[in-house]
Amino acid sequence: MSGMKELSQKVLTGDVRSASRLIRNLEDQIPGTQVAMQQIFTKTGNAHVIGITGAPGAGKSTLTDELVFSYRQRNKTVGVLAVDPTSPFTGGALLGDRIRMLRHAEDKGVFLRSLATRGSMGGISKAVGEAIHVMDAMGKDSIIVETVGVGQQEVEIINHAHTVIVVLVPGMGDEIQALKAGLMEIADIFIINKADRDGAGNLYKEVTNMVHMSVTEGGWEIPVLLVESVQEPKKFAESVSVIGDKIEDHYRYLVDNNLLSERLRRKTAAEFNEALWGAILQPVLNDLDAGGEMEKMVNKLLKKETDPYTLAAEVAVRYKNKA
Amino acid sequence: MSGMKELSQKVLTGDVRSASRLIRNLEDQIPGTQVAMQQIFTKTGNAHVIGITGAPGAGKSTLTDELVFSYRQRNKTVGVLAVDPTSPFTGGALLGDRIRMLRHAEDKGVFLRSLATRGSMGGISKAVGEAIHVMDAMGKDSIIVETVGVGQQEVEIINHAHTVIVVLVPGMGDEIQALKAGLMEIADIFIINKADRDGAGNLYKEVTNMVHMSVTEGGWEIPVLLVESVQEPKKFAESVSVIGDKIEDHYRYLVDNNLLSERLRRKTAAEFNEALWGAILQPVLNDLDAGGEMEKMVNKLLKKETDPYTLAAEVAVRYKNKA
Repeated sequence: MSGMKELSQKVLTGDVRSASRLIRNLEDQIPGTQVAMQQIFTKTGNAHVIGITGAPGAGKSTLTDELVFSYRQRNKTVGVLAVDPTSPFTGGALLGDRIRMLRHAEDKGVFLRSLATRGSMGGISKAVGEAIHVMDAMGKDSIIVETVGVGQQEVEIINHAHTVIVVLVPGMGDEIQALKAGLMEIADIFIINKADRDGAGNLYKEVTNMVHMSVTEGGWEIPVLLVESVQEPKKFAESVSVIGDKIEDHYRYLVDNNLLSERLRRKTAAEFNEALWGAILQPVLNDLDAGGEMEKMVNKLLKKETDPYTLAAEVAVRYKNKA
Repeated sequence: MSGMKELSQKVLTGDVRSASRLIRNLEDQIPGTQVAMQQIFTKTGNAHVIGITGAPGAGKSTLTDELVFSYRQRNKTVGVLAVDPTSPFTGGALLGDRIRMLRHAEDKGVFLRSLATRGSMGGISKAVGEAIHVMDAMGKDSIIVETVGVGQQEVEIINHAHTVIVVLVPGMGDEIQALKAGLMEIADIFIINKADRDGAGNLYKEVTNMVHMSVTEGGWEIPVLLVESVQEPKKFAESVSVIGDKIEDHYRYLVDNNLLSERLRRKTAAEFNEALWGAILQPVLNDLDAGGEMEKMVNKLLKKETDPYTLAAEVAVRYKNKA
């Protein structure tokens, strides 16, 4: 455990190797990692967390890459957390075009990690929250969380962010349009990417109309920003720089209207719930597993001798009396 | 509670109204619903559960609709569970083009429900599993679970299925191609939909190559089926009928190789874990909430007076001694 304390001390000095190791340990759920998290928790809460989401193929990685560049020009340090969907079988991350991000590899002001979303039930959102804490403890000014996809899970992940950017592109199908309705409510900033494509004008009009109809707390006017094709590097860089400005505007708005603390409260409550799972339920599961009892119980259920609810209630009573 | 026992009795006779009410109660997490689930659990395990997944816009709903038609021609009763991604704010389901399914509305052999994926952490997968039990208890021969999206969450949902169908379409971006790698491992049957589109031939070749490289347990050869455009109703119906045949082949394969029981074991273990959550952790959360203590604890965490792990450990000790 003293190794963990040392590890967390190094993370607090911004050490890249230690931060990488800690995040990997969190992903792999190495026992004892919690000790390091206990050490750093009280030092967190300083970074601005930015979420970027949108359908696959919307160009999120390219935007993130350029946004990092823009932040570095503003002398801000950046953490990037790319959340990749994974099959539960291999556990391997889909790095895809994130390889492009390699241009920041030599920059000490940028810390990039891909997080594979293996593990079941809430594990992903938990791992993302913890990785954000690690980057925060490292002293990064801004942390960009990029997710692939537009499902409920992405919405949960994106709830860790203070400022949420939703990236849309023209020419997606009807189902994508429908999905936008769900994303609509979490967006603080809209980006219409690949704006040189057919249908960009219509999409812009549509989103702008939706934005005008929506009411935001405290009067934030959700900007809808057009981004030129990456094929024209100068225009692209300019568009992304405007995004950077808007992100800063949104942060100031959150602080001025006391909304940052509200978001922080929601996030903290969720984290505490997960810690309670680890402290109360997990030991029971481990105990049942180790004694081979879990297997016996599942066998009883398979034979339909009892049902899961009745059996779980019996286990609950037993562990209460086992103190 | 006696109302719940009555409700479950009616579900077991196949009563549509009672089944709808039970599923709605499960979605809304109405207290006492568990009693009905206890009653029906030992009567489940007879239906063949088929999962259909793929990227948004791949045409899953249209295929499902036609597949239902094909099953009805084989004199099989069908349950359809459409899982919709929802924003955590509104909780409303995106019905989209499922309206097409209305043509089965008058058919007593078809039971269709949309499940909105509100609620956090594992709630969706749990609700899907329970809704499958309800349809199973109603006596449906086949249950089709259709999900929107290709994230980890969809993989979790689709784990409830005995036979998994992955729907692909030509002309999706690179990121979609990458996502296929994750879907590759869960597919029992591949469908290349909208096969009249440009790129269908290449996609077919690509998927066939991947399939040939993969090894399946017991020697199931994963079929890659081309489906003509819905614009040509007769050809479309024929293609879908072939899918129906392949689904039956796969079911027989599972039974013959004793693989059905293996899948059932995994599913039962997951269900029991969730029942343990409900019996052990949930009462603690409710207790902390009701006493206003949860709020006080979150305040302490916000002030960084302690960390979630230490606090959770304290709660765990207290509840163990509280028996």
